[in-house]
Amino acid sequence: MMQPIKEVLLFLLLAIFSKATGTKDYPNSRYSMPGDGASYCLSWRLAVEANNVRAWRTVPTQCLRYVESYMIGGQYDRDVELVVEQILCYVNEVVLSGDGMDAWILDVDDTCISNVYYYKGKRYGCDPYDPAGFRAWALKGGCPAIPGVLVLFNKLIESGLKVILVTGRDEETFGQVTRDNLHNQGFVGYERLIMRTAADKGKNAVTYKSEIRKQLLEEGYRIWGNIGDQWSDLQGECTGNRTFKLPNPMYFVP
Amino acid sequence: MMQPIKEVLLFLLLAIFSKATGTKDYPNSRYSMPGDGASYCLSWRLAVEANNVRAWRTVPTQCLRYVESYMIGGQYDRDVELVVEQILCYVNEVVLSGDGMDAWILDVDDTCISNVYYYKGKRYGCDPYDPAGFRAWALKGGCPAIPGVLVLFNKLIESGLKVILVTGRDEETFGQVTRDNLHNQGFVGYERLIMRTAADKGKNAVTYKSEIRKQLLEEGYRIWGNIGDQWSDLQGECTGNRTFKLPNPMYFVP
Repeated sequence: MMQPIKEVLLFLLLAIFSKATGTKDYPNSRYSMPGDGASYCLSWRLAVEANNVRAWRTVPTQCLRYVESYMIGGQYDRDVELVVEQILCYVNEVVLSGDGMDAWILDVDDTCISNVYYYKGKRYGCDPYDPAGFRAWALKGGCPAIPGVLVLFNKLIESGLKVILVTGRDEETFGQVTRDNLHNQGFVGYERLIMRTAADKGKNAVTYKSEIRKQLLEEGYRIWGNIGDQWSDLQGECTGNRTFKLPNPMYFVP
Repeated sequence: MMQPIKEVLLFLLLAIFSKATGTKDYPNSRYSMPGDGASYCLSWRLAVEANNVRAWRTVPTQCLRYVESYMIGGQYDRDVELVVEQILCYVNEVVLSGDGMDAWILDVDDTCISNVYYYKGKRYGCDPYDPAGFRAWALKGGCPAIPGVLVLFNKLIESGLKVILVTGRDEETFGQVTRDNLHNQGFVGYERLIMRTAADKGKNAVTYKSEIRKQLLEEGYRIWGNIGDQWSDLQGECTGNRTFKLPNPMYFVP
């Protein structure tokens, strides 16, 4: 007989608080389906991750606190970890040739290392993209590793795959600082870090990354997997045998 | 001074309830990030929609109540509605030629009409696929329209697009009942309903649907958009100028 009483009490308490605080951000079911505001932001985030919302410039302002809570409250980390588990299941099935040409591609920003501290100062993406601000941040070389991806990175190398990092960052400006940042965060032992050269300037991410992957195939590599936080990392040509989309509700790279 | 007191009180009440009920399904932040159980299921659902989890046979048993709540508690409907809004924004930008060959492709099951009542009896996908059970259900012709998609369907036709429905259902078994079901739910005025013939038997969905789309292009149609609840509706060849993935955490079609 305790359970119904508990539920009635909980309902009353939540109803009182919902009224008292004037918000509907508290759950409306036992299974934590969110209230109106968070419900919209959850729909928006899902649509971003499923590539239904494209070319968005900023996070909807009403989702600032939602995205903050998502990024630093634990759900982002759990989402990354579940994808990493899926990747490891797949890697276990891959039969490597042993000729040293079995490759795996990883993006860098918000795939290996995180810009969440920078985006905290940009209202988690509610502010528009600020190239000078991002440049200053990246030049500090202080992006922390995304823990689940660092574990994965090491397992990929252990399994015999050649890990190739492909980033839209410019070699001339960010070459040394990016290598240092990756190194100080434990990303050691990758095969190559490929960055934009002068010839790649102005190319969109899909074109630039497709060309890089095509060149890798021409060199004889087999691309078993490809991981990025942007759909533009995973679309275009020669995308790889399997692609994996890591979450990123803070910005969109075309 | 009221706000901090309210927050402390809310925290205490939630803490007491969390202890009292022995669950962690209540929120751990102001923004309705879910507790442990729902958190896993939310990660799983996101990974399904982002095509990171593939070829899954059943919903994880611990997510039964989560998926139920998602499907019938309102979040699924809101997720569909947000995608429909995105589709309508895109449709408004499309410039039609006026030659009657501007086409739009829609899947049928869980895109136009819903099988959620059937899946309720299959523990929302926690039970494995049951071909005989699904056949009996579909032969009743009682799948309800997905309201947001019915609105969209009519707007697509109004805008001058030729709506072509492409389904993996078998023509011989389900031809008449599917046409009747679509009609009784208000899906009237589409250009064509394309179903599997004897020649398509055994083809996986990506192959079958790619062949259909290729044939449509050969007939001169331009495929402006393509909507489905399965990634296999949206991948392969001639996928269309834009694709949109509707949510479906209940089953996976390879």
